[in-house]
Amino acid sequence: MQTELSKQLGIEHAIFGFTPFPAVAAAISRAGGLGVLGAVRYTAPDDLRRDLDWIEANVDGRPYGLDVVMPAKKVEGVSEADVEAMIPEGHRQFVADTLAKYGVPGLAEGEAAGWRITGWMEEVARTQLDVAFGYPIRLLANALGSPPADVVRRAHEQGVLVAALAGSARHARKHAEAGIDVVVAQGYEAGGHTGEIASMVLTPEVVDAVDPLPVLAAGGIGSGQQVAAALSLGAQGVWLGSLWLTVTEADLHSTAVTRKLLAAGSGDTVRSRALTGKPARQLRTEWTDAWDDPHGPGTLPMPLQGLLVAEAVSRIQKYEVEPLLGTPVGQIVGRMNSERSVQAVFDDLTRGFEHAVDRINRIAGRSARP
Amino acid sequence: MQTELSKQLGIEHAIFGFTPFPAVAAAISRAGGLGVLGAVRYTAPDDLRRDLDWIEANVDGRPYGLDVVMPAKKVEGVSEADVEAMIPEGHRQFVADTLAKYGVPGLAEGEAAGWRITGWMEEVARTQLDVAFGYPIRLLANALGSPPADVVRRAHEQGVLVAALAGSARHARKHAEAGIDVVVAQGYEAGGHTGEIASMVLTPEVVDAVDPLPVLAAGGIGSGQQVAAALSLGAQGVWLGSLWLTVTEADLHSTAVTRKLLAAGSGDTVRSRALTGKPARQLRTEWTDAWDDPHGPGTLPMPLQGLLVAEAVSRIQKYEVEPLLGTPVGQIVGRMNSERSVQAVFDDLTRGFEHAVDRINRIAGRSARP
Repeated sequence: MQTELSKQLGIEHAIFGFTPFPAVAAAISRAGGLGVLGAVRYTAPDDLRRDLDWIEANVDGRPYGLDVVMPAKKVEGVSEADVEAMIPEGHRQFVADTLAKYGVPGLAEGEAAGWRITGWMEEVARTQLDVAFGYPIRLLANALGSPPADVVRRAHEQGVLVAALAGSARHARKHAEAGIDVVVAQGYEAGGHTGEIASMVLTPEVVDAVDPLPVLAAGGIGSGQQVAAALSLGAQGVWLGSLWLTVTEADLHSTAVTRKLLAAGSGDTVRSRALTGKPARQLRTEWTDAWDDPHGPGTLPMPLQGLLVAEAVSRIQKYEVEPLLGTPVGQIVGRMNSERSVQAVFDDLTRGFEHAVDRINRIAGRSARP
Repeated sequence: MQTELSKQLGIEHAIFGFTPFPAVAAAISRAGGLGVLGAVRYTAPDDLRRDLDWIEANVDGRPYGLDVVMPAKKVEGVSEADVEAMIPEGHRQFVADTLAKYGVPGLAEGEAAGWRITGWMEEVARTQLDVAFGYPIRLLANALGSPPADVVRRAHEQGVLVAALAGSARHARKHAEAGIDVVVAQGYEAGGHTGEIASMVLTPEVVDAVDPLPVLAAGGIGSGQQVAAALSLGAQGVWLGSLWLTVTEADLHSTAVTRKLLAAGSGDTVRSRALTGKPARQLRTEWTDAWDDPHGPGTLPMPLQGLLVAEAVSRIQKYEVEPLLGTPVGQIVGRMNSERSVQAVFDDLTRGFEHAVDRINRIAGRSARP
């Protein structure tokens, strides 16, 4: 499964895997794709350094990438404390009441909330970049908006391709103007932050909008048939995130979140502002229901919402409070019904892709094999 | 472009075209697809008879089909007047106020509202069926739920395949249990009544759910690339509706609605209950905004909403009141940028399909041509 972009990156399959877990990223690259480590949760540079060292040692010399979150709108000189002060007391009370209602225990004294909003702030993203540029990453992706010009320049000086996620052709064109190299067209059905346009419509629209830049299709892809469909739409590869949440290499292995993911159907996600303040697809839970309830206080804008709920989400995760326990994930969760190794997922994707190509050739009246 | 289903129906391309316009249905069948006439607006049996006669005379002996709307839940012995009486006065006032605000003129004395709710009611659908079974239709589709057992039986006795639209695997399985022959998997991005699951995820899910029944993919399909993608997902054909709204054969030709459709982007639709009381994708207008406004009265459940707004919609259409003027249409509207003949659309679809198959073969490392 080779496109111009996969050849340029020297990978065997045009499959890009986004994951917050170093072991999964390395396994994706070893399997012939491009593993892309999500950096958002690394607030301490040393933690990121440690995990990139680990990837370097475990990737068998294959290329890999890093995904950072630099919001498009830069907020100069605003600290986390400034943002904290903007959160209304009623919202804090709603968080406390909801946690109390479900009997969610508190964290121990001095125990840090695992997932912090700080990863969303530009200073942190820049610190992550300073670390990352010390490693031979091949791709730098930005999940929110176009990266700043100096970051693009620095990446290009080091031979690093820059990718950015887009939920509309308009966003994609802005990325192209910012000088990036690859657009990830993220459809409505994708996990995490998404727009309203579904992959079937979005992918070719973005391909046309940024031609000749290569486009990766994201959203709704978890089988070889779906890989074939995405490539039929003009993509030069696929960008998969959700699918790796239930692999055996993931840190989530055998946790309550994984059990919920394995049990969920494609209709069990919701595009909610509960997590960050911007619409992000995730498992629908009693937690998202509480925030989306028209009789509740509603969500706050980014970055307030993420800061407001960070500790609560950590507590829910730590104590595995099932009714409230969720995770960002796409509609493809309906297909994620067993825990498999990354290699087994790749075998399934590539075999399914070949079968889909056989079938489309039969439909087109061509011989199925060369 | 041949699948088992297209062979069974004796059509050249596995392209099914749903349209409310007889001239478009006939042109689709003549071009080698299967034209399917939407019957919902035919409240008078003679009108339907006249138009089916016309299709018979203009279809060059090619097969065609009919689409009726029989709600899954049967309401016994309820007349239109009974339903009228259930509409709150405040909602009627909101309609009147909104029309007055935009200066929408009234209809002339005795002038019938064009699109009436009655087409949704079972008596009317059954009258449509009595007419339709007098013609050599090859496919009978039901847009809301599974058709009643006696209708399926009668269709099968006449050698008519029965299709039903489904927005989830669960609905598709119910259709299969009801004995239908073809499931149309209608994705989130489609025009008209849709569920939440996007085509990329829904199509293979429905294919697996009803195997070995054939599945048609609907939603987001307007190019040969998208046809190739849908067929890659396991569909035995594609079901297109929106794309025919702007063909030169359509009754809408050169109207204000067509101008709005040609100008709209993929982000200019909304899934709103404004039209019928169930979520249906349509052009976003100041009319849909008024109904979706949290400060407004909100929509009524089906069939009340459709009955409530029928006359208003007719007036908006007749006088082409631009800010309020809409139509059901899918996200593919972003690709509908010129008025072309049905044959030109088919040429584009089949040529684009061949190119997409060439490309996927190159990516798979196979020779592009047999």
